[in-house]
Amino acid sequence: MGTRLNELVERLGGQLVGDAEIEISGVAPLDVADATQITFLSNPKLRSQAAQSGAAALILSPSDDKLIGADFRGARIVTANPYAYFARVAQVFAAQHSIPAPPGIHPTAVVDPTAVLAPDASIGPFVVIEADAHIEEGAVIDAASFVGRGARIGAGTHFFARVTFHAGCRIGARGIVHSGAVIGADGFGFANDGGAYVKIPQTGAVEIGDDVEIGANTTIDRGALSDTVIEEGVKLDNQIHIAHNVHVGAHTAMAGCVGVAGSAKIGKYCTFAGAAMVLGQLTIVDHVHVSCGSLVSRSILEPGQYTGFYPLAKNADWEKTAAIVRNLSAMREKIRQLEKTIKLLSEGQQS
Amino acid sequence: MGTRLNELVERLGGQLVGDAEIEISGVAPLDVADATQITFLSNPKLRSQAAQSGAAALILSPSDDKLIGADFRGARIVTANPYAYFARVAQVFAAQHSIPAPPGIHPTAVVDPTAVLAPDASIGPFVVIEADAHIEEGAVIDAASFVGRGARIGAGTHFFARVTFHAGCRIGARGIVHSGAVIGADGFGFANDGGAYVKIPQTGAVEIGDDVEIGANTTIDRGALSDTVIEEGVKLDNQIHIAHNVHVGAHTAMAGCVGVAGSAKIGKYCTFAGAAMVLGQLTIVDHVHVSCGSLVSRSILEPGQYTGFYPLAKNADWEKTAAIVRNLSAMREKIRQLEKTIKLLSEGQQS
Amino acid sequence: MGTRLNELVERLGGQLVGDAEIEISGVAPLDVADATQITFLSNPKLRSQAAQSGAAALILSPSDDKLIGADFRGARIVTANPYAYFARVAQVFAAQHSIPAPPGIHPTAVVDPTAVLAPDASIGPFVVIEADAHIEEGAVIDAASFVGRGARIGAGTHFFARVTFHAGCRIGARGIVHSGAVIGADGFGFANDGGAYVKIPQTGAVEIGDDVEIGANTTIDRGALSDTVIEEGVKLDNQIHIAHNVHVGAHTAMAGCVGVAGSAKIGKYCTFAGAAMVLGQLTIVDHVHVSCGSLVSRSILEPGQYTGFYPLAKNADWEKTAAIVRNLSAMREKIRQLEKTIKLLSEGQQS
Repeated sequence: MGTRLNELVERLGGQLVGDAEIEISGVAPLDVADATQITFLSNPKLRSQAAQSGAAALILSPSDDKLIGADFRGARIVTANPYAYFARVAQVFAAQHSIPAPPGIHPTAVVDPTAVLAPDASIGPFVVIEADAHIEEGAVIDAASFVGRGARIGAGTHFFARVTFHAGCRIGARGIVHSGAVIGADGFGFANDGGAYVKIPQTGAVEIGDDVEIGANTTIDRGALSDTVIEEGVKLDNQIHIAHNVHVGAHTAMAGCVGVAGSAKIGKYCTFAGAAMVLGQLTIVDHVHVSCGSLVSRSILEPGQYTGFYPLAKNADWEKTAAIVRNLSAMREKIRQLEKTIKLLSEGQQS
Repeated sequence: MGTRLNELVERLGGQLVGDAEIEISGVAPLDVADATQITFLSNPKLRSQAAQSGAAALILSPSDDKLIGADFRGARIVTANPYAYFARVAQVFAAQHSIPAPPGIHPTAVVDPTAVLAPDASIGPFVVIEADAHIEEGAVIDAASFVGRGARIGAGTHFFARVTFHAGCRIGARGIVHSGAVIGADGFGFANDGGAYVKIPQTGAVEIGDDVEIGANTTIDRGALSDTVIEEGVKLDNQIHIAHNVHVGAHTAMAGCVGVAGSAKIGKYCTFAGAAMVLGQLTIVDHVHVSCGSLVSRSILEPGQYTGFYPLAKNADWEKTAAIVRNLSAMREKIRQLEKTIKLLSEGQQS
Repeated sequence: MGTRLNELVERLGGQLVGDAEIEISGVAPLDVADATQITFLSNPKLRSQAAQSGAAALILSPSDDKLIGADFRGARIVTANPYAYFARVAQVFAAQHSIPAPPGIHPTAVVDPTAVLAPDASIGPFVVIEADAHIEEGAVIDAASFVGRGARIGAGTHFFARVTFHAGCRIGARGIVHSGAVIGADGFGFANDGGAYVKIPQTGAVEIGDDVEIGANTTIDRGALSDTVIEEGVKLDNQIHIAHNVHVGAHTAMAGCVGVAGSAKIGKYCTFAGAAMVLGQLTIVDHVHVSCGSLVSRSILEPGQYTGFYPLAKNADWEKTAAIVRNLSAMREKIRQLEKTIKLLSEGQQS
């Protein structure tokens, strides 16, 4: 069972060139797509490969269509953003193969009688839903997840197995939270009293907008007094740590192992590559891109790409350069001495 | 319902100046506290803001009280450590709003008959408690947590939902373990045999003192032969990894994403900022402070602050400096050549 | 109850010198082994300590046996790789003390009737096993673990409590997966459409070979279209993140907090020390060793040890060197100016 090209174009738009009745069985990358599959061209370097592709259909931009469209023997869908179009086509096919979660509450789940659940919400085995929690229409809470007192889960949001979502936290519509994520644990707040630590109660919550995806084993702590905020459209990969009272602006994306310390304020449309780290109490404006493994130790007030990691080398070479880095002050002093000597020499020569 | 100022001072000490009968509804930061709330001053830069604050009451130090106490129109509590005092006041109010865990064993919990549970311990839904485990008075084990064979949980210790605490591990009194933490998984120990790895059984446990807090999704591995040890008062944030046979001294604190490799011995009253990393088999004395993103690759035998991360820059600037770092040996050689040339020149001029 | 030396040698090989009938109670390191325990010598620096050891028996290499064997008063087992032999002896003793998991399905587990379970597999409390999953002979699935639709768990593989193993993923024989690990969450794949992100369905799975160990709270994402692959004998420590479509070659080991970005191809027999990070879309050949805290930002096509972290220093020293690093371009320019001046001086002198 496939989907005809004209059905795809009816749903997703784009200009169809070629046989509208072709049945497509699924999606595939350029180099492996076969005569039943649809593929896409977004990397200009792959134009000639696209022209030769054996795919049944090709998604490409108007400019690429002018360059190689005529050479491709299958059908084409011409659209401004072929990669995003491909993603939506892949969603259509994935939905065909997905097995819908059964609506209703699994008999083993423990749901407090004061919790309010939409009738079509799906609550898996061993789920715990505490008092006054709200689960909206179409939400899916998979096995062994925990929803704390007064928490709110928006319409169509999907918790995979073993998500922890603590009391009072809220997530909007169409969210996805992956297994092992912990939302709303206490922030790390202590007052030092003669060496020992006194815990500062963390009484804020976590407020998450619509269309947010949160990766496996990622943690987002509740705020100390006010809330930690994740705005709409934010995408967080696995193993990320968001500390208390952080504010992440809309449509910002963070790759795996990123960490953000307390009260950092991060703008919209930013990206953080893997293992980037952000100190607390600072501001990052919109459209900032931080490279992998880079530590943001001060506010960034100008958009752009920022980097700060030690370049990799063969260990023996690194040992040499690291020794010099440790003694850069000495090298600078040596250069200053050379400058002085040269100045004296120069004066001597001129005299 | 609030709490009168004199009740707070009776419980927590400090010198009260002003109306002892004022009812306080809760705590708030300086800039937002209203006429029913109590706030505090610890940052000298905020003295004038504190003087103008609309809070009902202000916690401040004797020296600050001399400077601005008379200007503040509400009541004051004068104490040596206003921030710690504020933390304790916040605990009082948080306790008023917290809903106590019900004592007893949830009917869905699976508790081995040989486990010994204090009658007032609270065991949540889907908790598993294996043979010979001990749960002391007032301990709270939230939903879906796992307590392995022979483990011991001290009085008043609280496991949030979905904690894993493996066989034979022990934690003292008044501890807090957050969701997703895994205590007592096998340490990472293998003998290499012609390229393949032979597992070394990890037969030690994890021994945790009193008043320890462990963050969400943090992992502390069991020792290989002897135990991994976390002393009293240690505070660990989220996503931390403590390897086998590490020893963490009392009242040391680690922020999110810190990692400590096997058999590292860390002193008391140390702090590790976010994403600091510590190699194995080394020693760090008491009162060492490691900056964020810094890798401790050798023992630290002198107290103080230590740092080692590559400074962040605009990507283009980083590319330039990184290229030079890679070639620092060449730069050093060039400076040596210059020195030689100058020496020759200098001799030539003198001759 | 102990084990006689000749039983050990019958099972594990090696050449026994001395009393074959000695009963051994367990293993211990050189410095603490007592007259009922067996120990080993692999570090040449410890030869004299080994000779003096009070252990009942000593495992050592033929060359060390020639040097110090005669001085040791107990029995000896001579073998090519004493450390690996010791690991196997430790396994023998650990097995004696381990309590075997009871075969069969705990009454609280939720197992889909279409799942296929070997009769001797052990399924713990609150485990969920979805439709069409396969659990092979001797596999042990501990409390609260989740096995998704169509997943396959090989013979003798052990999931500790609270493992998540998603639909369609496969792991071979004799594997160990520690608590909190999440295998098969969605990879982090989005197409950017005018700033917002469109999710790319992740329809691949995770394919894991035989004899693989996966640490606590480690995550391995499913592939986007094809599978993420972990070959046989791979050992992953805790808190590791393996992104979608990564390929990890056989017998590669990664220490805690390592991260590997999407589609990285890593060879066999590699090692990654703690917190090493690997960018996506690159290739690392066999026998590459990456130091702790080092970021692999380009392919590594030659075996060897690679390093790239900023050396730790006292904070004040770091501030000095970091300021110079930020201005290395200026230093290079200054050196160029010096070269020019010297050239002119030199010409002036020669004229």
